Amino acid sequence: MTTRRLWRLQSRPDGDIADGDLVYATEHLPPLADGQFTLGITYLSLDPTNRIWMSDAEQYMPPVGLGDAMRGGVCGRVIDSRKDGVTPGDLFAGIGEWADIIVTDGTGLSRLPEIPGLALSDVFGTLGLVGPTAYFGLLDIGQPKPGETLVVSSAAGGVGQIVGQIGKIKGCHVVGIAGGRVKCDYVVNELGFDACIDYKADDVGAALDRLAPGGIDINFEQVGGPIMAAVNARMKLFGRIALCGLISQYNGHEGDPAGLWTTMLMRRLSARGFIVTDFSPRFGEAAQALAGWMLAGQLKTRQDIRPGLENAARTVKDLYSGGNFGKLLIEVTAP
Amino acid sequence: MTTRRLWRLQSRPDGDIADGDLVYATEHLPPLADGQFTLGITYLSLDPTNRIWMSDAEQYMPPVGLGDAMRGGVCGRVIDSRKDGVTPGDLFAGIGEWADIIVTDGTGLSRLPEIPGLALSDVFGTLGLVGPTAYFGLLDIGQPKPGETLVVSSAAGGVGQIVGQIGKIKGCHVVGIAGGRVKCDYVVNELGFDACIDYKADDVGAALDRLAPGGIDINFEQVGGPIMAAVNARMKLFGRIALCGLISQYNGHEGDPAGLWTTMLMRRLSARGFIVTDFSPRFGEAAQALAGWMLAGQLKTRQDIRPGLENAARTVKDLYSGGNFGKLLIEVTAP
Repeated sequence: MTTRRLWRLQSRPDGDIADGDLVYATEHLPPLADGQFTLGITYLSLDPTNRIWMSDAEQYMPPVGLGDAMRGGVCGRVIDSRKDGVTPGDLFAGIGEWADIIVTDGTGLSRLPEIPGLALSDVFGTLGLVGPTAYFGLLDIGQPKPGETLVVSSAAGGVGQIVGQIGKIKGCHVVGIAGGRVKCDYVVNELGFDACIDYKADDVGAALDRLAPGGIDINFEQVGGPIMAAVNARMKLFGRIALCGLISQYNGHEGDPAGLWTTMLMRRLSARGFIVTDFSPRFGEAAQALAGWMLAGQLKTRQDIRPGLENAARTVKDLYSGGNFGKLLIEVTAP
Repeated sequence: MTTRRLWRLQSRPDGDIADGDLVYATEHLPPLADGQFTLGITYLSLDPTNRIWMSDAEQYMPPVGLGDAMRGGVCGRVIDSRKDGVTPGDLFAGIGEWADIIVTDGTGLSRLPEIPGLALSDVFGTLGLVGPTAYFGLLDIGQPKPGETLVVSSAAGGVGQIVGQIGKIKGCHVVGIAGGRVKCDYVVNELGFDACIDYKADDVGAALDRLAPGGIDINFEQVGGPIMAAVNARMKLFGRIALCGLISQYNGHEGDPAGLWTTMLMRRLSARGFIVTDFSPRFGEAAQALAGWMLAGQLKTRQDIRPGLENAARTVKDLYSGGNFGKLLIEVTAP
């Protein structure tokens, strides 16, 4: 009989995630039914949206049930299969669980390409969900044009680093916002952003006035709160807000900044909220473009890989305090 | 020497418009220069945006200067002309001044068609600015589809009454929000809205739950504040917010409702602020459609006509207390 290790959601966090909200457990796996397969998880993706799924607030998928395995992005290889066309060793990625093995009929998973010359962590960390998020959010909603000014918050995070580089590929002036000099130097020196504001050290509004003196055409919004207010207050007429996330709000610390709707009206801004899965029929288009840019050396990404499934619950908290540097992954088993 | 009566902006209102913020005056008009003409004003349009123009807050046109003639929508006939192609008796409408005569080179004005069988007040009150506002805001931004649910606030006002009727023409289920039973009965019984919520008597949220139980596809937003919050909280996934106005905010009484950006994200809503003049190259398209619907009996509008330029400053306040019923016009001289 096979056993697996997993994290269960024990209680819904009240504010920050607390010890004990997630519990680490072992369980026996039932025999595979027809049409199912087991996936041995290589990487677990930790993402800001995990905190949303833990809550029972309004959200875009059903919340994780109390006592259920925690939901998460995963990639891994098939161990055993009773599903036609699925063979041990096949590589899949998608929505799974915080576990070392998952039993699935394939719902929410798709095949992950293996790209010669690229590590699996880079392929999964880029093409998995963050790459399509950056791709569709910036291109479909932001509609960047050469010479326009793009501001991206969480610039050194999984999505932000890709948004800025696609912005540069599209000819934009790109200003990132990140926490700390090391992250800021990275996105400018390694990724080619034009500038980056350290929100922990700088006055964001004053820095935007200096770095984007003509105003901002596109806000790729990931944080909400006062940083969002500072960016939106400097939008140009007819600017676009790609509303990707509001991480400062997920732990319930802050309300909406005042006056943003008035700015929306007076400057005739457009804003659109989106979730990457809305674009799932077009993931192939994104994967092709992203892989092409990676192979051409135009798109680099940094993964922040932490070993050990047992560390997942502690590690996910880093997302909300800025403790990650790049796409946060748990290495569940060696690739 | 010709004299005119006019309203000057004497001081910027602090909160509600106060007696003395606008002063009624008489002045001599200089002789016409080449390229100028005088327009004898028939109707002055009073609009929510007047309060914005009186302030020096961020806005979409330069604020009216202190001591200058108050800006306003007008229509009237040419009295005297030194401009080629402009002849006494010609009918113009557009942005002018709160006055009985204006001297202009035609900037901001365009010819108003005379439509047989329709009163000038109906043509101006519908085609002037409110009709294009309703037309472009609903059709371009709201993108109504048959069977969708449209909610329009200020439903009995100049713009709202047209929005709801275009919504019906496009096959939507239309729910208005207005102040008082008389206005609500009017938009339902006379204009064909499916329902109307009296925000002065009803709990707006509970009424929306009853009248739009499946949720709202389009919010044609004109008021902001708690009514906006109640509507947006009931938007469907992928709903659209046409942000036309925030009248509850103009006098500075209220802040933004909390949580709207989270709703925008989770339900993947789109919002776009707009000002009707953004669409001025396409005004001909709107006028043609609106006039066609009027002549076909599919579009009725109600004008709330008050006599006497001397009453303009007192009358404009009615817009912010819901004291108007239909498009608010001052009859400056008999048509």
